[in-house]
Amino acid sequence: MKEINAENLEDFIRGTAFLGTGGGGDPYIGRLMVQQELEKCGAITLLDPDELTKDHFGISLACMGAPTAFVEKLPNASAMIASMERAEKELERKFNCIIPLEAGGINATIPLVVAARLGLPVVDGDGMGRAFPEFQMTTFNIYGADVNPFVMSDDFGNTVLLNTDAAIRTERYGRPVCVQMGGISQCASYPMDGPTMRETCVPRTVSLAIEIGCAIREARSSVSADVCDAVVDYFKNASPNPRFASVLFDGKVQDVLRETTAGFAVGRAKLTALDDPGVEMVITFQNEYSRASVGDRTLAIVPDLITILDRETGEPITTETLGYGQRVKVVAIAAAENMRSPEALEFIGPRAFSIDEDFRKLETLTWQ
Amino acid sequence: MKEINAENLEDFIRGTAFLGTGGGGDPYIGRLMVQQELEKCGAITLLDPDELTKDHFGISLACMGAPTAFVEKLPNASAMIASMERAEKELERKFNCIIPLEAGGINATIPLVVAARLGLPVVDGDGMGRAFPEFQMTTFNIYGADVNPFVMSDDFGNTVLLNTDAAIRTERYGRPVCVQMGGISQCASYPMDGPTMRETCVPRTVSLAIEIGCAIREARSSVSADVCDAVVDYFKNASPNPRFASVLFDGKVQDVLRETTAGFAVGRAKLTALDDPGVEMVITFQNEYSRASVGDRTLAIVPDLITILDRETGEPITTETLGYGQRVKVVAIAAAENMRSPEALEFIGPRAFSIDEDFRKLETLTWQ
Repeated sequence: MKEINAENLEDFIRGTAFLGTGGGGDPYIGRLMVQQELEKCGAITLLDPDELTKDHFGISLACMGAPTAFVEKLPNASAMIASMERAEKELERKFNCIIPLEAGGINATIPLVVAARLGLPVVDGDGMGRAFPEFQMTTFNIYGADVNPFVMSDDFGNTVLLNTDAAIRTERYGRPVCVQMGGISQCASYPMDGPTMRETCVPRTVSLAIEIGCAIREARSSVSADVCDAVVDYFKNASPNPRFASVLFDGKVQDVLRETTAGFAVGRAKLTALDDPGVEMVITFQNEYSRASVGDRTLAIVPDLITILDRETGEPITTETLGYGQRVKVVAIAAAENMRSPEALEFIGPRAFSIDEDFRKLETLTWQ
Repeated sequence: MKEINAENLEDFIRGTAFLGTGGGGDPYIGRLMVQQELEKCGAITLLDPDELTKDHFGISLACMGAPTAFVEKLPNASAMIASMERAEKELERKFNCIIPLEAGGINATIPLVVAARLGLPVVDGDGMGRAFPEFQMTTFNIYGADVNPFVMSDDFGNTVLLNTDAAIRTERYGRPVCVQMGGISQCASYPMDGPTMRETCVPRTVSLAIEIGCAIREARSSVSADVCDAVVDYFKNASPNPRFASVLFDGKVQDVLRETTAGFAVGRAKLTALDDPGVEMVITFQNEYSRASVGDRTLAIVPDLITILDRETGEPITTETLGYGQRVKVVAIAAAENMRSPEALEFIGPRAFSIDEDFRKLETLTWQ
């Protein structure tokens, strides 16, 4: 039986920062929150998607908001429980497990905190396989799970419950409420039975985070290994599902343009190559990194994963901590298979991020 | 037994335009909607507040939005019924009467349309005694009725249900949703039993609208009477509750500054006196007229009623139809007694409209 415990927490947290692909907030806060719960409960049980039966009834939990707001306003587990209970009241049924909405950033840890408090297991999977900025950008939605009821809570016990005809409308109606709530809302969404979770989730992303963190930690403690190469090797050799991965760029942060607007952190970073200052990479982001390019040549694009790592320690760098002079490597990973289908690309392909180009797989784009 | 029927509809509609104090949208649309229902049902029964018992269970209905949006996007009675039914589901109890949220403008007619369709009576009273721009600006709220659950519907069957600790928070969270819904939302709020409605409403404002309309109509058909004076006389001699009223200004519209922003129509109008172009009146508005002044001298201020009437026909002029060159009279009426208490002024006094002055009663301010 898999679990999150004091031994693998640090690996897990570093892995969620990696899967945050620049978004999802400071993992340090999430770590402290889970640690506190583990001191009380010992371990949080993970449910493999294959173990899910029709008696399972789960809810996905995530904070809505710009990661830049999370720096000042902490996620609130009690408010998250309030959202969950409001959904239970609406559905007249109790949840017996929790599924993360996203695998990256602080939203990968919040479900664990709530699960620990309530003594519930957490499904080893999620709806994004990484982090994405909006609530319709989930495999749950793409493969037919219902977002309703969607409940938002603030820190004062106020709840807003939405029932809409499409997850994208939930996002449009909910986002400005989040801004009014102070830039962060605790949201319960996509209530699902076991088979629906199994069929619509990106599987085993909690254990994936643990393994990524483990690969980084082990490479750090080795004298000879390059940490970023070690992450790439981990993905290439992962069993049973290897994924294409590559180091796209080795450079220095030259310039970051960042704006918190309409509930999102949007902008772009410019990097110059360490071995040739004339070569510049531009990485655009909307909460998460969405496209990496050199000149007019795209090297990686959503939904494939783009992560910026400290070139020495392999520590993932989020958009809000990105700053001038940092020496970094840009690592790209092929997204999970069910995130690259034509129906998935409608919701999480480049055009969903206002990028006017078709998705092309990372393995067809690589530069070097 | 009082009722709204084909005979008094025109008077009622003109009265609601008067009580709209510049806001509340084009009364013509509301008239057509009620007329259509009356052709099917004959008459809509009015319940006097004194008739209300603890077996009555009512809900207040109103559209949220800027009147400028109502010009393009009609109120939707089916969506209003959807909000009402969503509140019934939440409360597990059926409503047996409807109470208007506001006495002025199109929101005075929408409850009648819904009542006619559902065969329910309408309480002869409301929560504003006129029109106001925001949902916490009600005597229901001021005198302790609970705004929850607050339900918003759009034209596509989507609902947003809010449960908050204060009506002003409901307003803050709901308003941006209204903007996303296209600038208009159909809202059900303040579910109340009979005694609560009786104790918190501004009483008999539906019949007040009928009587104002009647006074205007009768003065129009008389050769000698001045229409605006006739309205003022009606209020001064009303039985059993006469109210102070006066013609503040007789002039011409010189300039209108109008902006639809954050779900409101805000701005100011400048008028010059017909008998002395050097004398200028400024009237500010946020959906409704909130303050009339000459130089630095305030002549009327919220919650007292300020209405601009066509100087010949007595037709009330709403903020969105106000335009250069119109010959108008500005009429002011003392607000109902329960709208002028210290607790009421906290919610509907000048400072609630960002006007930095204390409320002074109209009767202490008059100029001429």
